[in-house]
Amino acid sequence: MQIAIVLFDRFTALDAVGPYEVLSRLPDAKTVFVAEQAGPRRSDTGYLTMVADRSFDEVTSPDIVVVPGGPGQTEQMTDNRLLDWLRDTDATSLWTTSVCTGALLLGAAGLLRGRRATTHWLALDELARLGARPTSDRVVVDGKYVTAAGVSSGIDMGLRLLGTIAGDEHARAIQLMIEYDPQPPYDAGSPAKAPAQLVETLRATSRFTQEARP
Amino acid sequence: MQIAIVLFDRFTALDAVGPYEVLSRLPDAKTVFVAEQAGPRRSDTGYLTMVADRSFDEVTSPDIVVVPGGPGQTEQMTDNRLLDWLRDTDATSLWTTSVCTGALLLGAAGLLRGRRATTHWLALDELARLGARPTSDRVVVDGKYVTAAGVSSGIDMGLRLLGTIAGDEHARAIQLMIEYDPQPPYDAGSPAKAPAQLVETLRATSRFTQEARP
Repeated sequence: MQIAIVLFDRFTALDAVGPYEVLSRLPDAKTVFVAEQAGPRRSDTGYLTMVADRSFDEVTSPDIVVVPGGPGQTEQMTDNRLLDWLRDTDATSLWTTSVCTGALLLGAAGLLRGRRATTHWLALDELARLGARPTSDRVVVDGKYVTAAGVSSGIDMGLRLLGTIAGDEHARAIQLMIEYDPQPPYDAGSPAKAPAQLVETLRATSRFTQEARP
Repeated sequence: MQIAIVLFDRFTALDAVGPYEVLSRLPDAKTVFVAEQAGPRRSDTGYLTMVADRSFDEVTSPDIVVVPGGPGQTEQMTDNRLLDWLRDTDATSLWTTSVCTGALLLGAAGLLRGRRATTHWLALDELARLGARPTSDRVVVDGKYVTAAGVSSGIDMGLRLLGTIAGDEHARAIQLMIEYDPQPPYDAGSPAKAPAQLVETLRATSRFTQEARP
């Protein structure tokens, strides 16, 4: 089994590394980081660089595709090479997945039309515009399409997919090895739980709100 | 403020990326990935490469030091260049921190003697041998030394430190932006919660158990 994780400039690192840390531990699976061209890609903060070991041309039929999000997603929406690769690999993939605004790329590739899906909470309206049926669930499975909410949700998605593919026992073992017993010091991790004023402030300054303005 | 995150071969990626994703969003802070020499470092699975932008020689007085763990930690225990750098930077750091078996490196550098600290649950005995007072708390603060448990705990550590440095409001905003509202599909993330048989199996095959055998 081959797992391909997409990189592009200004991706959000945890979007990619959350599912990687879980799924790369699938028995008999190989994981590869892939981009339009092989080479280094800089994350959204400008501080972190990860390397794509293979180009899209070299990875033609991965079993699992993982698409992260991040500010760089906007630019990729009109880059046909990524969208073409997503459509091509989707023809044979067992699972096509995304974290955060990676779902907008699946949507732009036409893969989520009429499907239940999720994305970063600030991007749910965008996802609807691309023909999906957005939900605010943290992980959404619709057929072979698995989408996760913002950034950190990729860990939950990875564990859920791992359990489906390799069994609950294996998934529990990986959860214990990565000691995933989350204890956030605050309870502000979703717009339903965070202070309303904070939600409004972030919404007002979001790139999606800005882009939607005339 | 400068945040330095250490890389070495066979590090565990999420150990580094969890705190990075949170702490790099500190206002007016710059984050740098640092290693003995600048250049790419391969993670423990062999599938992921991150780049150290600076060498130890180039980063001499970071305000926050973050040390990840991973299988490569064993080799670093006898590499004086990392241990010397940890001691040198600790002389002026505001916070010296670790995730997972990164705490064993702080311990080997002599920085945790008599201090309360934590590490990956499989490595707590090792931590005691290095003179620390291990606890099974997920995040432990003893003076300026902040240690986190296994792999995924670095996200919780990052948020806690962010709250202490930049205030609860800012930390809540970052939690909401990374949508950290964890919903693990299993409740097996700590040895106290996972099935006893699984805990025993992982303990029996752990590198620490193997190393301890005569």
